[in-house]
Amino acid sequence: MFKDITPLLLDGRALDRTIALLADYATGREIDFVVAAEARGFVLGGALAARIGAGFIPARKPGKLPAATASVDYALEYGVDALEMHSDALEGGARVLVHDDLLATGGTARAVCELVEAAGAQVHGCAFVIELGFLPGRRQLSSYDVHSLITYDGG
Amino acid sequence: MFKDITPLLLDGRALDRTIALLADYATGREIDFVVAAEARGFVLGGALAARIGAGFIPARKPGKLPAATASVDYALEYGVDALEMHSDALEGGARVLVHDDLLATGGTARAVCELVEAAGAQVHGCAFVIELGFLPGRRQLSSYDVHSLITYDGG
Repeated sequence: MFKDITPLLLDGRALDRTIALLADYATGREIDFVVAAEARGFVLGGALAARIGAGFIPARKPGKLPAATASVDYALEYGVDALEMHSDALEGGARVLVHDDLLATGGTARAVCELVEAAGAQVHGCAFVIELGFLPGRRQLSSYDVHSLITYDGG
Repeated sequence: MFKDITPLLLDGRALDRTIALLADYATGREIDFVVAAEARGFVLGGALAARIGAGFIPARKPGKLPAATASVDYALEYGVDALEMHSDALEGGARVLVHDDLLATGGTARAVCELVEAAGAQVHGCAFVIELGFLPGRRQLSSYDVHSLITYDGG
């Protein structure tokens, strides 16, 4: 099952409302930075950061960031992938919101959380638009507070 | 020379101000959609669309979009690349703002403009954060109105 948010992005009012709902979740968490993985997490991640007055930090595929990076490997359904973040992007103690459009198996989001914690910062929530509730994403992120705007339970 | 906007994104106030300046450029152009290429164009492209009440359309590398796509090939410094957009994303006559973080040789932005026009829509401006003025990006986009927040003239 492929859930795709591009039809939602097409509608300016739906786009704005989605960012507002994600920002509602961030309220009271005193978020310093939103961190999101390329590429789909960037679309709402940058907008969410701006909406809540936070900075935005991209987690990217290897070799895409120009300065020194920290890296984490993570398992895919078939094989292994890696994400990188600028080493100096986060200071110890910074409060981070991890975002992606879709929570499926949770591998990508968990890798982002690991990058954040390896930098000495703290994950104060994970915010998704869509969660596939029949996949183990939420279990992969059981150490964190997880919020999804929409959950599909059908398999 | 590699110009990188990730330090700017880190600063919530600078991020917000950058989106506001891009939105200022869009004012009066009655933009229906912002179209941006993956991955870096997504960070501010989504935020810009939300800020001006427009929809957002991603232009992606081949094979990344789930529905039927239109495609365009474009030259890189060494080789060829391609971008795809959902075929049904744009209707004829829609007014589009093309965005990317960086205007260098202009190949990517021009490919995005070609996708937009192939769909029967119109490019009503191209907005960048950084322009490398010693490269032919602006010449590549001479059919369009081009706006950059910062121009570097040094080579």
